[in-house]
Amino acid sequence: MENRGETQDDVAAGSIGDWATCSADPGYRAAVLDLLGALAYGELSAFERLAEDAKLAPDLADKAALARMASAEFQHYQRLHDRLAEIGADPQEAMRPFVEPLELFHRMTAPSDWLEGLVKAYVGDAIATDFYREVAVRLDDDTRDLVLGVMSDTGHARFAVDKVRQAIEADPRAGGRLALWGRRLMGEALSQAQRVVAERDALSNLLVGGVRVQGFDLVEVGKMFNRITEAHTRRMAALGLAS
Amino acid sequence: MENRGETQDDVAAGSIGDWATCSADPGYRAAVLDLLGALAYGELSAFERLAEDAKLAPDLADKAALARMASAEFQHYQRLHDRLAEIGADPQEAMRPFVEPLELFHRMTAPSDWLEGLVKAYVGDAIATDFYREVAVRLDDDTRDLVLGVMSDTGHARFAVDKVRQAIEADPRAGGRLALWGRRLMGEALSQAQRVVAERDALSNLLVGGVRVQGFDLVEVGKMFNRITEAHTRRMAALGLAS
Repeated sequence: MENRGETQDDVAAGSIGDWATCSADPGYRAAVLDLLGALAYGELSAFERLAEDAKLAPDLADKAALARMASAEFQHYQRLHDRLAEIGADPQEAMRPFVEPLELFHRMTAPSDWLEGLVKAYVGDAIATDFYREVAVRLDDDTRDLVLGVMSDTGHARFAVDKVRQAIEADPRAGGRLALWGRRLMGEALSQAQRVVAERDALSNLLVGGVRVQGFDLVEVGKMFNRITEAHTRRMAALGLAS
Repeated sequence: MENRGETQDDVAAGSIGDWATCSADPGYRAAVLDLLGALAYGELSAFERLAEDAKLAPDLADKAALARMASAEFQHYQRLHDRLAEIGADPQEAMRPFVEPLELFHRMTAPSDWLEGLVKAYVGDAIATDFYREVAVRLDDDTRDLVLGVMSDTGHARFAVDKVRQAIEADPRAGGRLALWGRRLMGEALSQAQRVVAERDALSNLLVGGVRVQGFDLVEVGKMFNRITEAHTRRMAALGLAS
């Protein structure tokens, strides 16, 4: 009875056990390798894009602010990389399946100026955070701590919101253009995410049901994407932009 | 007598005193603001270039290695920025005079491929280190500790030397092209450095004589540039390249 009670408490608190226990299931292990690989490449890629956007900065203080964010993303990358190595995976191999979808996303959404770059940094970071929070509840304790740790705010949100609001105040027409831009970012993000979901079975199972659910449920994936889209809509409104 | 003895010991150890004492001289203070401003923008600019070069990396491990160096440069930038603020300077203002010469240097020496980027990172970092070591002996203790601290190896040297040597081994013709490239880098670096020396009086006085020497001595500047060029020649030979 006492043991069952503890188990129910654990479930209520969202715990499915630690890495040592959960990783005994090869499907779970494969899913976590995918997840950490996707997250690691996402961080490395965010580093690159933020460093690229730093070049568009109107002054040295803004340039340094973006360089600071880029460096923070790199520190996150390093933690994910080291964790992959620690659990016996090849970090390069784990990242590889996600290089193409992420590069394609970035190619389709190359900012044409400083403000588009800021909106992309803000929106992109927020979508990624929503996604990893959705998935975190289905993870073992060790992996969840790592994922939530590297998803901690790197200062994008406040910096971007302030700068974008100032720009729209100074030139209200910028709002219309940036609203369109926000929609395009979300569309491309969903399209690449759906591609990844379709191609990575283990990861998809984890996304929709965790270790307890077998089989792939498109309806559940759709619901998750809807929740992320709704959160995006609220954020665009906070920026003063219609989505 | 005892006091004079201590002073001679200090001079022998290369100490001209701490920042509080030395900065009472407005010429010295101006020179250090220039030096820290140049160094800070150099680090921010190195961050940008390394991040840019990371895109040319042939694989994910190399890309991550360059991103790691870029992040290390950013941490250095942050320390210099914070020090400028601490001594009551505006970091943006202090950096401004060095933006154009450094950007011009980078525009004249944009690497066309991964190997050129590596040679540039290696050579550029080494020239900067030589330069700051030359000047460090003329600095007050506090500024010298900071300058030598941020000049500590960020891992460029070993990584670049290994990769370039492997590439020349695999394709000996690459050696000739990279030797030319090294010469061009040194030429452009000297040309921008001479421009800075001609335009920044306080900094130039510090370079050639420190606080004890007044008046600008072109012969001394020439000798310093010669020492740096000689060190460059030895490094290119270590890379397997004729300079």
